[in-house]
Amino acid sequence: MAKALLVAVTGPTTEAWHKRFADYPSGRDLRFWPDRIGRVEEIGYAAAWKAPHGAFAGMPNIKALFNLGAGVDHLIADPQLPDAPVVRAIHPDLSMRMTEYVVLHVLRHHRRQPIYEAQQRERVWKGHDQPAASSVTVGVLGLGVIGREAAAVLQRIGFQVVGWSRTPRTMEGVEVFHGAEGLAPFLARTEILVCLLPHTPATEGILNLKLLRQLKRDGALGGAYLVNAGRGKLQVDADIIAALDEGAIQGATLDVFPTEPLPAESALWAHPKITVTPHNAGDLAPSELVKGVFVQIDALERGEPLRHLVDRARGY
Amino acid sequence: MAKALLVAVTGPTTEAWHKRFADYPSGRDLRFWPDRIGRVEEIGYAAAWKAPHGAFAGMPNIKALFNLGAGVDHLIADPQLPDAPVVRAIHPDLSMRMTEYVVLHVLRHHRRQPIYEAQQRERVWKGHDQPAASSVTVGVLGLGVIGREAAAVLQRIGFQVVGWSRTPRTMEGVEVFHGAEGLAPFLARTEILVCLLPHTPATEGILNLKLLRQLKRDGALGGAYLVNAGRGKLQVDADIIAALDEGAIQGATLDVFPTEPLPAESALWAHPKITVTPHNAGDLAPSELVKGVFVQIDALERGEPLRHLVDRARGY
Repeated sequence: MAKALLVAVTGPTTEAWHKRFADYPSGRDLRFWPDRIGRVEEIGYAAAWKAPHGAFAGMPNIKALFNLGAGVDHLIADPQLPDAPVVRAIHPDLSMRMTEYVVLHVLRHHRRQPIYEAQQRERVWKGHDQPAASSVTVGVLGLGVIGREAAAVLQRIGFQVVGWSRTPRTMEGVEVFHGAEGLAPFLARTEILVCLLPHTPATEGILNLKLLRQLKRDGALGGAYLVNAGRGKLQVDADIIAALDEGAIQGATLDVFPTEPLPAESALWAHPKITVTPHNAGDLAPSELVKGVFVQIDALERGEPLRHLVDRARGY
Repeated sequence: MAKALLVAVTGPTTEAWHKRFADYPSGRDLRFWPDRIGRVEEIGYAAAWKAPHGAFAGMPNIKALFNLGAGVDHLIADPQLPDAPVVRAIHPDLSMRMTEYVVLHVLRHHRRQPIYEAQQRERVWKGHDQPAASSVTVGVLGLGVIGREAAAVLQRIGFQVVGWSRTPRTMEGVEVFHGAEGLAPFLARTEILVCLLPHTPATEGILNLKLLRQLKRDGALGGAYLVNAGRGKLQVDADIIAALDEGAIQGATLDVFPTEPLPAESALWAHPKITVTPHNAGDLAPSELVKGVFVQIDALERGEPLRHLVDRARGY
């Protein structure tokens, strides 16, 4: 029976991932793409992050694919992906990490921290209007595990929170809109838009000028703000800049981009109203994620079902 | 019976405060320091913010003094203050406003946002180690109403939280140290120190080099951080800089200063590891505060007791 685990990672973190898998006392036969693959028939599992499409072609015995990050879009877009269950990188920590990021960047706009930092550079001591969180409405676009956790903490801090999801949902204290017809009323209520949607054909490019123009500009904050911690392909970079320049939004924090790393020539880097972070909102404690892969493989070999499976048809 | 309310405010917000009191439909006889005081015998109440010491001397009928900000130290240090109850500016909002600030600045250090902002200026795309909140200990120095609210929200976000207070206290899920002998073990556990103490003779200058050297530097964050949203006189500015320069702390966010506004020549403004905000952590929605003053005066005149009184002997 094929029991080897292939680790298939590319990018600057490759070496660190290899070391984490090698260091974990699993006793399992490990292979590393692309140089130490060995006999492909022996490979029963794969753990992947940004593996090139086609990397798993010709590996007939793969029984499970473990994704090593939050977004599965790159992996499941592989036209030669083996017909095996795809397991998402769910760790109790992931929704907490994302929530840390969302709360930080919502409060940063709400409390006008970029203005105070600009003032500090000029040695200016000057307060600005700061409506209480209870006067400000944050709209959470996407109410999966992560969106719900972020919404709950934002509520605890005092914000009014509204939500939008594809299908009908309920959440205590949160007015939830859904479906195509729910989007306009959701946006009309939202002063700070937090995007936590997955990337699917239906969501691609959703953060465009038409959508951003529908946000509430005359609320307590006197303008609208965007925090995109979802996926890069949700956003149209040129439209974000256009929305800032015409005043539809007053500021944007972007953790994800259609092209990553964000190219050095992108106008987003230097725009005074844009904050760029290097797709780190959901960074997991990677050692915990490695442990999770081995725990699930052991469970599968004991005959237990895999948990946290991706619905490939739905796209997340 | 003296029923007029004297509004005694100085500084850049004076005009705005005058307008708020004048606009509120109280029907009460209003006086404004220093130009529209009228007959001092008619003044029964005063609402004050940064009123010069001696401003209320010779006003024999003042029955209550309402402080229009969080810190009462300036007001009660007035040697000529009438012997009347001092009411603190407690609004349900105050602890929430302070908590917004504390959570923003704790997360900002924890998630290394200043590093990402510096990278953005250089167009650098690079992640950094980010321990989960659950691996990081925040120490809250001062567990009054504000400290307890901030501690509760920090816990909800996932941080390990320890607390210190002058007298013994308990708080669910928070290890609370107290008294002089509890300070060292509290600091030894703390990676991010949040100071929310009042200013009293016992706390003046408490944020000094000796204290900052006792913070935990070898925790998950790999360094210690300070957020002072308490009072300016708690901190020794030169010691903050010394602590940063020798590595006792890696960063500091300061909302308060021994001299305010922070003088333009202060070295704090330009220190790369210091974030300066203009004493705005607890900024209240001022219109709500004005309403609170009139509501309390009306209650007093109906024979009800004043609420939220300051203990002058204790100093807060």
